[in-house]
Amino acid sequence: MSMHFADRLLAAVRAKRTAAVVGIDPVIENLPPDLAPASRFVRAAAAAAEAFSRTIIDEVADVVPAVKVNSAFFEAFFDAGVAAYYRVISHAHARGLLVIGDVKRGDIGSTAKLYARGHIDVPPYDDVDPAQIPDAVTLAGYLGRNAVAPFIETAARHGRGVFVLVRPSDPGADEIHEFGADCKLYQHLARLLTAWSDFAGSVGECGISCVGAVVAPKDADSTQALRASLPTTPFLVPGYGAQGASADACRPCFLNGGRGAIVNASRSVIYAYQNDRYRSRFGGDWRACIRQAGRDFAEDIARLAS
Amino acid sequence: MSMHFADRLLAAVRAKRTAAVVGIDPVIENLPPDLAPASRFVRAAAAAAEAFSRTIIDEVADVVPAVKVNSAFFEAFFDAGVAAYYRVISHAHARGLLVIGDVKRGDIGSTAKLYARGHIDVPPYDDVDPAQIPDAVTLAGYLGRNAVAPFIETAARHGRGVFVLVRPSDPGADEIHEFGADCKLYQHLARLLTAWSDFAGSVGECGISCVGAVVAPKDADSTQALRASLPTTPFLVPGYGAQGASADACRPCFLNGGRGAIVNASRSVIYAYQNDRYRSRFGGDWRACIRQAGRDFAEDIARLAS
Repeated sequence: MSMHFADRLLAAVRAKRTAAVVGIDPVIENLPPDLAPASRFVRAAAAAAEAFSRTIIDEVADVVPAVKVNSAFFEAFFDAGVAAYYRVISHAHARGLLVIGDVKRGDIGSTAKLYARGHIDVPPYDDVDPAQIPDAVTLAGYLGRNAVAPFIETAARHGRGVFVLVRPSDPGADEIHEFGADCKLYQHLARLLTAWSDFAGSVGECGISCVGAVVAPKDADSTQALRASLPTTPFLVPGYGAQGASADACRPCFLNGGRGAIVNASRSVIYAYQNDRYRSRFGGDWRACIRQAGRDFAEDIARLAS
Repeated sequence: MSMHFADRLLAAVRAKRTAAVVGIDPVIENLPPDLAPASRFVRAAAAAAEAFSRTIIDEVADVVPAVKVNSAFFEAFFDAGVAAYYRVISHAHARGLLVIGDVKRGDIGSTAKLYARGHIDVPPYDDVDPAQIPDAVTLAGYLGRNAVAPFIETAARHGRGVFVLVRPSDPGADEIHEFGADCKLYQHLARLLTAWSDFAGSVGECGISCVGAVVAPKDADSTQALRASLPTTPFLVPGYGAQGASADACRPCFLNGGRGAIVNASRSVIYAYQNDRYRSRFGGDWRACIRQAGRDFAEDIARLAS
């Protein structure tokens, strides 16, 4: 675990020959019929979401280097869902995957310190599985350096990483991230990220930092400029698949040579059984649909990465 | 519960004759010695934090209208802490208090919808206590309208509210919120908040909206200008007490007549037993220290509100 996060990430991408990351976003209404909860108890709903998440992981574990587990979809089941969130992370680790905890936390320093305890630090308790902590988390850095420092310092100490929101995928986020005259907010955030990333040991042997950025592909020119301004920052790229971006659109998020970025797809893989393309081929076998969609996604992104 | 959030909030402030809100931020290292966890199990730590939180609520319930329960401090204990978070909210409701869930969530629309389920909606499960849902939550609105809409729509439908971060208390947040030339980011956020607040039923009979803002007191001029630009927005004011702001500094956050704002204090009240001022008077009776600090805080803020 003490190996640098970026070295572990790049090794995993190299081993799987793709930078594709599957997002685990279980929505109760969209679960396959045979996983429908047996009761109106929240524990039954959380258990169904957990079973679905574990199956997704089992089906894609041999073709992708990492999964991204989205906390929101588990928090919908209250504490029962949060318990499932941590067990799903442990399961992904047991299957040899890197895990990104998609939590988007962000608060003032004294509060961020406590968020870091629950989401990126080594648990100090005898009954907490250390494998339930993800290898990296997503962060909202809008409250400045003090809001991210507890996460970055703790992550770096334990060979883990962070991905700070710089350019989100939702076009609705533009009304804030494109704010500004000569310099837009997302460019300002990129400059701050560079400052926050400047500490001893931030960059691994591979030349990439443990402080990453969430960067959605927009027009190629502005994405290339953003990529050039963050030459050692790993990008976590949302927006592929159900959100509309193609693999080619994600290309400018990579460094020359196809390193330094991972691309996430959630709905287009995990709900492949709702897609005629897969349903016509595999019928009601939702596991086979997810497996094939995971392979198609991994291959599509493999063209981009080295 | 169908009564408008702002009407409920103002009625509670009127009933207690103060706009003081006590923040529940339990840190394991700071608990009174007699609440120290009995083991290195996370459930023991979460139980200690919960017992502390319940006691704070019991000691201040007769003098303040509301408490703010900070999710971060419970997430530090993983799912055991999240279960405690919800039970603490239920307990505060049972003591007649309004509750703000301080969760600062913010993500793209499809994810925000799921966060709203776990944090502001009416639980659809037979085994979930409806009283565990707070009356309002704090939000990070940096991903735009789609990120806050699921919360705002759900809150408004159920007589609940939201407080969107506009001007945080941590000076470190200024490097982002003071970004911009003529118009600063916090002013831009205030304009967006006005747009997001523009829907039928957003304003209660009292003339105040269910869409609020987190606004820390900075210099009086800029705070007054921000207050004037948001004439129907309730302000949740952080920064008082341990963070350095006085009651007078909070005054510009109120509307004329002393309405439309609530002021939070966490550490200065709940850790009063670490303060010589209270310890010299009450010795090791930490409950009495919290009770007195809660009263002093409530009285100090009472000067501001009507």
